[in-house]
Amino acid sequence: MATKSKRKNAFYAQSGGVTAVINASACGVIETARAHRDKIGTVYAGRNGIIGALTEDLIDTGKESVAAIRLLRSTPAGAFGSCRYKLKSLDANRREYERLIDVFRAHDIAWFFYNGGGDSADTCFKISQLSQALGYPLQAIHVPKTIDNDLPITDCCPGFGSVAKYVAVSALEASLDVRSMARTSTKVFVLEVMGRHAGWIAAAGGLIETHGIPGVILFPEIEFDEAKFIARVDALVRENGYCTVVVSEGAHRADGSFLAEQGSRDAFGHAQLGGAAPVVAQMVKTALGHKFHWATADYLQRAARHIASKTDVKQAYELGKRAVELALKGANAVMPTIERTSDVPYRYRIGVANLADVANVEKFMPRDFISDDGFGITEQCRRYLQPLIAGEDYPAYRGGMPVYATLKNASVERKLPLFEVK
Amino acid sequence: MATKSKRKNAFYAQSGGVTAVINASACGVIETARAHRDKIGTVYAGRNGIIGALTEDLIDTGKESVAAIRLLRSTPAGAFGSCRYKLKSLDANRREYERLIDVFRAHDIAWFFYNGGGDSADTCFKISQLSQALGYPLQAIHVPKTIDNDLPITDCCPGFGSVAKYVAVSALEASLDVRSMARTSTKVFVLEVMGRHAGWIAAAGGLIETHGIPGVILFPEIEFDEAKFIARVDALVRENGYCTVVVSEGAHRADGSFLAEQGSRDAFGHAQLGGAAPVVAQMVKTALGHKFHWATADYLQRAARHIASKTDVKQAYELGKRAVELALKGANAVMPTIERTSDVPYRYRIGVANLADVANVEKFMPRDFISDDGFGITEQCRRYLQPLIAGEDYPAYRGGMPVYATLKNASVERKLPLFEVK
Repeated sequence: MATKSKRKNAFYAQSGGVTAVINASACGVIETARAHRDKIGTVYAGRNGIIGALTEDLIDTGKESVAAIRLLRSTPAGAFGSCRYKLKSLDANRREYERLIDVFRAHDIAWFFYNGGGDSADTCFKISQLSQALGYPLQAIHVPKTIDNDLPITDCCPGFGSVAKYVAVSALEASLDVRSMARTSTKVFVLEVMGRHAGWIAAAGGLIETHGIPGVILFPEIEFDEAKFIARVDALVRENGYCTVVVSEGAHRADGSFLAEQGSRDAFGHAQLGGAAPVVAQMVKTALGHKFHWATADYLQRAARHIASKTDVKQAYELGKRAVELALKGANAVMPTIERTSDVPYRYRIGVANLADVANVEKFMPRDFISDDGFGITEQCRRYLQPLIAGEDYPAYRGGMPVYATLKNASVERKLPLFEVK
Repeated sequence: MATKSKRKNAFYAQSGGVTAVINASACGVIETARAHRDKIGTVYAGRNGIIGALTEDLIDTGKESVAAIRLLRSTPAGAFGSCRYKLKSLDANRREYERLIDVFRAHDIAWFFYNGGGDSADTCFKISQLSQALGYPLQAIHVPKTIDNDLPITDCCPGFGSVAKYVAVSALEASLDVRSMARTSTKVFVLEVMGRHAGWIAAAGGLIETHGIPGVILFPEIEFDEAKFIARVDALVRENGYCTVVVSEGAHRADGSFLAEQGSRDAFGHAQLGGAAPVVAQMVKTALGHKFHWATADYLQRAARHIASKTDVKQAYELGKRAVELALKGANAVMPTIERTSDVPYRYRIGVANLADVANVEKFMPRDFISDDGFGITEQCRRYLQPLIAGEDYPAYRGGMPVYATLKNASVERKLPLFEVK
């Protein structure tokens, strides 16, 4: 009994856009916490991320079976719900930070595990600092997650390897399709991928070149030059009969305007919604007359657990596990990272970064990862990407469909007054 | 030597839009022909489909290794190239039909295997009739292929099961994503799928309902009623917090206009290219104010060999194999078919249809496969679809990427004068 009363609880929340492997990190956190029952009581998850903490809407993960938690490893998206909600600065919204501490105190929570990207790392850092100021001992550990791969210090971010694999495989498959059709029909295929600021995801499309596919990649890091682009497509189609264009949603012109912005209105006056892919496809059609097809992968790419990278799943799990181990060692305001030690064979170890160095820093594609003409990737980039998409980690299937977890997500009884968000 | 001289050659061509498993049918044709070397000499493939026959641009598949032909079974798209080229009627273009016979005669071709959909079945039928009229003995056998699943008589068409699996799996994964985000962000996800006339592919999206996902399916068979649609989405979002819409590219209004037609122009006066998904998404936003995301899968869905249905791959192969066996038995103007004999457990046998009954007949979704409100599928439809997506048949991977065949596609020496197409 004495031992039990000394145990503290942990809080875990998923933040921002979800990925194919964020639940693998959740699995790593919860399984590791369960392996240390002598120190960690219950892992409470925030229902819909940090909103769950603010509104005291906590999920008792202790109610989930061992098998259900295990199944999280192969389940895409956020099993506890996520949210897009950035806490304001301490000065602007001290009320919310104090509420978080109130909730943590009410539920005897000593560890705060926040699973997200750059904004979340910032929030996590602020919370780590505040607990000290408010005299409530809390260790805040960030678990990295972002398909955008734009967190600093860590070599890569869980979620990215799987979206990269999805994009590379899908672009290859669609390219074989176009190659088949090019004689009388489609000659140019355009695939739009995510990545508003950084071109990491688009870069994965560049991997098709090693499979003999003529490709053009449009990065957010390179200002879009229509004449140069059309000349490149023209040359590739003349030489190969077809080509594939992978365009980042963040691709933009010299004036900063996104390709996706078409500036037109529909019959009802609504702004046009095209996305970058149809714009690029139409440009090719207008300039060169080629028949085209285009696809916009959107959520399909970040949810595609069925084609997840084994490396990515493994790292997502390991970083969740390491976050708990760091917490048990007394760490605060840190994030476990991937430290690559070798490209071939691929080797890495788990490192640690201070959140003060992570928060609000975005990592873009290095210029030497992009070819001189700006339309492809370099050997250096390929060496970076290749291990991240390596290996398959298929979910189980039943009746032709993948078996994904849907948890009970039982609520923890509330102890505090209601709190309104916003 | 006497034996050798009696052997005739075969011609094989891929026609129309390619699929994830059309090469599995090619594999079935070629492997089975090779197993009957005593009767069948070489399988010549048309480079880019029937265009290759017209222009005497033949590929010697005998130059491909056993391993390369085997690899076709797990390679998407058309390994010999396909084309969109419909032969005109005999009266309108007797010249082309006569040219085909000339080419077949020059290369001692006794068997014509045509791997395609409805239009191709019509061409194949015409050729089967003409050879008789022109006094050249030729057996024409059609190998069914179409993701649209709209050929009559056969229970299903190779290519469909895999695109159905892709759509069902992708819609499920993206739905889990939306479910995670719905509290503060995206509440409605719209996925556009292929199927200009028939809603078979869209119907596969209806399989997510058995996984607890609130879904709305927009079929080409059901006239689109905006008010009813919005009411349905509103009800689902109120009850579940989110919903997923799967819209067929062929979905249209009562006046026949496609949802994809927005009637707007960009800044340069180009017709707008949106596709149905952004139109539907914007409708929801305008009427209900919900944040949305949308994806257009386009070629990704029909090329997605990485998530092909095992049933589909098997049937594609078997129908190619049976086509050769039928030819060896002297059949002409026929198509091997799938005859389902039981839903659970799924059982089928390979049947035979006369091309006269296949050509120019489209098979639509039966009304009792669509729910009364027009927005979902019935239990009957689920029983039909389920076995077609059953089983996984993963390609091999190397370095994180699938291993797909790229053939030598060596040309056969020309014997005839050039012939201009069109």
